[in-house]
Amino acid sequence: MTKPNTKPITVWLTRKPSWLSASWAVVLILEELQVPYVIESFRFNDVKNRPCTDICPNGGVPGMYHHLEEVYDTEKKVTYEPLNERQLLNQYLHFQMSGQGPYYGQAGWFNVLYHGRIPSTIERYNGQVRRFLDVLSTYLSFMSWNCRLDMLLQTPPGEDPLAKYPDLIDDQGLMPNDMPKGINNIKEYEEQIAREAAEKEEQ
Amino acid sequence: MTKPNTKPITVWLTRKPSWLSASWAVVLILEELQVPYVIESFRFNDVKNRPCTDICPNGGVPGMYHHLEEVYDTEKKVTYEPLNERQLLNQYLHFQMSGQGPYYGQAGWFNVLYHGRIPSTIERYNGQVRRFLDVLSTYLSFMSWNCRLDMLLQTPPGEDPLAKYPDLIDDQGLMPNDMPKGINNIKEYEEQIAREAAEKEEQ
Repeated sequence: MTKPNTKPITVWLTRKPSWLSASWAVVLILEELQVPYVIESFRFNDVKNRPCTDICPNGGVPGMYHHLEEVYDTEKKVTYEPLNERQLLNQYLHFQMSGQGPYYGQAGWFNVLYHGRIPSTIERYNGQVRRFLDVLSTYLSFMSWNCRLDMLLQTPPGEDPLAKYPDLIDDQGLMPNDMPKGINNIKEYEEQIAREAAEKEEQ
Repeated sequence: MTKPNTKPITVWLTRKPSWLSASWAVVLILEELQVPYVIESFRFNDVKNRPCTDICPNGGVPGMYHHLEEVYDTEKKVTYEPLNERQLLNQYLHFQMSGQGPYYGQAGWFNVLYHGRIPSTIERYNGQVRRFLDVLSTYLSFMSWNCRLDMLLQTPPGEDPLAKYPDLIDDQGLMPNDMPKGINNIKEYEEQIAREAAEKEEQ
């Protein structure tokens, strides 16, 4: 169900994997707020050229979450009204933007994308990724799940990069693959989600 | 002149140079908004421990600019009222937080702080710093001045890292050392600033 009489927003997506999640976050917000939208795609090759750079001079794909929230989230579904809660959310956003994002990005660059292999540089950024996991697990009490952590850190086959945090994973009733305990595959998971939604509907 | 009947805010500073500018930005905002404050200092060694991490789990020194603006900047002296201007300002803040800050930081780490020398890694981050200078100069039409760019990039003695942007510097009537043309040293500069302030007072 979408709000009537609203001109659809155009969401521009590009297929660079590490940026795609930021673009899908926009879609998640629009879905949650029931704002109509259409999706258009463009080539990654074009992002550093005009007209893209007229909108984002840095040649990135901005998400504009604040803007969407302020304009469309009149019922505060994806943000908070009180000053304190809103600023804590903002603090977490800046932790992600200035720390987690850039450092995961550097780890990805030197582990996966760069043509050479520089052990001391890789050591620095893998260490930073582990530090961010520690911050997330210890103080923020929830894990920013990333099912490609093993690829990012290039951990040996069979080694679980989140093994250090068993209680946290256990608390949420999840297994290391992010699925609930007792669920064997994505089909079973989808069936469980549908079943829970139906039960909620009945109440 | 400060606003009466306001309990002074305590500004906590630590002497890590790259963080000090963020802390001084808080002081600049408080001065501009005439909010009373007192300065306390703490050791850099303590920043990754409690009680610091109770406030900032990442062990950094947060600036809380948004919070200060929202609570104290009732006359919109350091921000904007209209949605569009405010979000453009926010876009620039995130450019600094997610791009300029972290990448300048990596350049500083590998050029200055790290005990070894890794040419290919240095090349990556010096290239990124130059890319950010290009973005700032071409689209945002003003330069984020940094009088330690030569140290950051370890440019050869006598080489000006901003030589590529003569028009921009010229437009603002500045010399590469950030002082106005015709001014030979900081004493002359301070005298000029005092003279201009006096002239403005008379008008």
